Amino acid sequence: QIDGDRLWDSLMEMAKIGPGISGGNNRQTLTDADGEGRHLFKRWCEAAGLTMGLDTMGNMFARREGTDPSLPPVYVGSHLDTQPTGGKYDGVLGVLAGLEVIRTLNDLDIRTRHPIVVVNWTNEEGTRFAPAMLASGVFAGIHEDGWAKDRMDASGKRFGDELRRIGWEGDEPVGGRPIKALFEYHIEQGPILEDEGIDIGVVTQGQGLWWLEVTLTGRESHTGSTPMPKRRNAGLGMARVTELVHEVAMDYQPNAVGAIGHVEVYPNSRNIIPGRVVFTIDIRSPDKETLDVMRGRIEKGIATICEALDIGFEIEAVGHFDPVTFDEGCVAAIRAAAERLGLSHRNIVSGAGHDACWINRVAPTAMIMCPCVDGLSHNEAEEITKDWAKKGADVLFHAVVETAVI
Amino acid sequence: QIDGDRLWDSLMEMAKIGPGISGGNNRQTLTDADGEGRHLFKRWCEAAGLTMGLDTMGNMFARREGTDPSLPPVYVGSHLDTQPTGGKYDGVLGVLAGLEVIRTLNDLDIRTRHPIVVVNWTNEEGTRFAPAMLASGVFAGIHEDGWAKDRMDASGKRFGDELRRIGWEGDEPVGGRPIKALFEYHIEQGPILEDEGIDIGVVTQGQGLWWLEVTLTGRESHTGSTPMPKRRNAGLGMARVTELVHEVAMDYQPNAVGAIGHVEVYPNSRNIIPGRVVFTIDIRSPDKETLDVMRGRIEKGIATICEALDIGFEIEAVGHFDPVTFDEGCVAAIRAAAERLGLSHRNIVSGAGHDACWINRVAPTAMIMCPCVDGLSHNEAEEITKDWAKKGADVLFHAVVETAVI
Ligand SMILES: NC(=O)NCCC(=O)O
Ligand SMILES: NC(=O)NCCC(=O)O
Repeated sequence: QIDGDRLWDSLMEMAKIGPGISGGNNRQTLTDADGEGRHLFKRWCEAAGLTMGLDTMGNMFARREGTDPSLPPVYVGSHLDTQPTGGKYDGVLGVLAGLEVIRTLNDLDIRTRHPIVVVNWTNEEGTRFAPAMLASGVFAGIHEDGWAKDRMDASGKRFGDELRRIGWEGDEPVGGRPIKALFEYHIEQGPILEDEGIDIGVVTQGQGLWWLEVTLTGRESHTGSTPMPKRRNAGLGMARVTELVHEVAMDYQPNAVGAIGHVEVYPNSRNIIPGRVVFTIDIRSPDKETLDVMRGRIEKGIATICEALDIGFEIEAVGHFDPVTFDEGCVAAIRAAAERLGLSHRNIVSGAGHDACWINRVAPTAMIMCPCVDGLSHNEAEEITKDWAKKGADVLFHAVVETAVI
Repeated sequence: QIDGDRLWDSLMEMAKIGPGISGGNNRQTLTDADGEGRHLFKRWCEAAGLTMGLDTMGNMFARREGTDPSLPPVYVGSHLDTQPTGGKYDGVLGVLAGLEVIRTLNDLDIRTRHPIVVVNWTNEEGTRFAPAMLASGVFAGIHEDGWAKDRMDASGKRFGDELRRIGWEGDEPVGGRPIKALFEYHIEQGPILEDEGIDIGVVTQGQGLWWLEVTLTGRESHTGSTPMPKRRNAGLGMARVTELVHEVAMDYQPNAVGAIGHVEVYPNSRNIIPGRVVFTIDIRSPDKETLDVMRGRIEKGIATICEALDIGFEIEAVGHFDPVTFDEGCVAAIRAAAERLGLSHRNIVSGAGHDACWINRVAPTAMIMCPCVDGLSHNEAEEITKDWAKKGADVLFHAVVETAVI
């Protein structure tokens, strides 16, 4: 069993870096705070006897040697970056529980045959630079390295420049590492486990996603002196698309979700009818066909809405992944570990995207989830208990060690 | 008759200060560009022999002495500040046409009995600091001087501090100046005069307005893993309120308008359901009762929308003026001038708010309008012809001189 107090203390220590405004974290990717968090993680890894690898996307790989260094390592980890108003556990738990696996192995003086690598993937959240899971996507061959480096944040800063600026661009080419298996441990970010009083989510699948960035172009004009029939109100168009996305998601729920989280209005003046709006639609489903049907309905609906309002539109897909089914063997290893530890568990579908969803395309992969209070995540008030954190980390320990010894 | 070329050249000269991105202007109030525009205006005034007064709100009063300096002056002017993506004429035309009246009187060596004062009112637009027509409102006793100085822009800068920073805070107390009459010349900012091929709008009334700043509070949570029934989506609430405002305005148009131009979404991340939104509703009508009924319907509707979505709301009135009826004598002087010059004219209601609407409460006031292309304003593409500009300025000249000689 892992040391629940040590894991918790590390979580709290990391949470001091990039504090939020109400108890959570703002440690967005490639900010100074991200750099500081990486340094702390690196110090901890070195203290645990690990050697650090760093690739050109800033992915960090902390390796504990196996008795047979020629064997492919077992990977364990997640991400240290957060949302602008994020919680202390989303991602961080998976990285630091990976470190706790190592520390426990050190305490017990256990050597595994396969090396074990604790990984921190760059830019999982996708808020500052879309898409989410950017660097694991490059690792899995989904995105080109150069394309990823050219992603821009809202203020026009380039991913590649910011990575270099914070000093975490490595030399190692991205991808191509041999991987025996990868385990990602994450909070559920939804309410199911807590509602049902279950300790462990054995993640069998992950939802697919489309991020559709929509630009509506109307005409800026005076809110007071432009007659109603002469208006070409892009903001009204956005309102109608927001309602449409909600309606479509409601038609397919609980097998789908949809919302708009990101909005820019131009010129954003109280007495100017919006001439242009840019916003991103987020739709998801574990079922590929449903996801495609939703996308089709939404795109058709946008055309109809814009025609009625005499406004133009452009739709660009800025993020996408298909639903994934995790590796049977890895899933079985997690389930067996929960059984062995006498923990309640159930199969679960991940509502969020995770680095594991990309890595699953190039190596056997699975995920473990623990409950979170009220299903709340992407909120500074995100909370878990020390006990929940420990139980999942115990399962992680067993699944990893089991896989690494054979 | 005034010199149309000279007026036009001055307009183009002023437009070089605080250029926009597509041919218009961004000379928002109390920015460095505003300061620079004021300096240019002051130089022109001094060259025309005027003496400059400056009050503690930064209102500029350029005086041409009358043959009887003890008589109350005739005022003429408007504002030099612009929207963030504003046109070259909105406000500026009224100030520089006032200056052109002076220059023409100088050319003709005409002395009027009453002094004439060309005025530039501070912060007419209200984009950077709400409400609009802030400094003329203080002048007319609608707002307190101290309250006005405490208005904040979106970045938390105080009006009073910014006024001092650009060096245009004067010593003169605001208001209380004797005024025989005030004439404001402005582009229509709507399509009526151009559509009907009419030279001059004789403004008999101005619409009333409410700016309602609405804050909706839901709950930030993950767009992927939060089940649809568990969402408290403030962005969806805003969408519904946007549609509501449109519906209510459509019910009363052409006797009313309504829209939302200003929107802030928090935390504005693609994969976070908006936990809070702040936006400003702009509703207007020339009929006070209609305006009040609209406000009532919208406030009730917001409560209903929020209840259905389990989100909280606050509504704050950040701008308001009642519909105004301009002074009969001043309106008649404008109409008579248009007649005398053989220009086509019609009565018109101002869709926008103007400094004249406030001054009308403390002195006889009226407005002249000229057409603008496609009714477009609060847009960098705002356009008028030199001929239109001249015709309105001729009417202004005659109305002002007529009033100043008797
Ligand atoms: N786990 C998580 O929040 N990932 C961010 C990508 C997503 O939006 O699903
Ligand atoms: N004329 C003008 O655009 N004034 C700004 C105040 C308003 O929104 O009406």
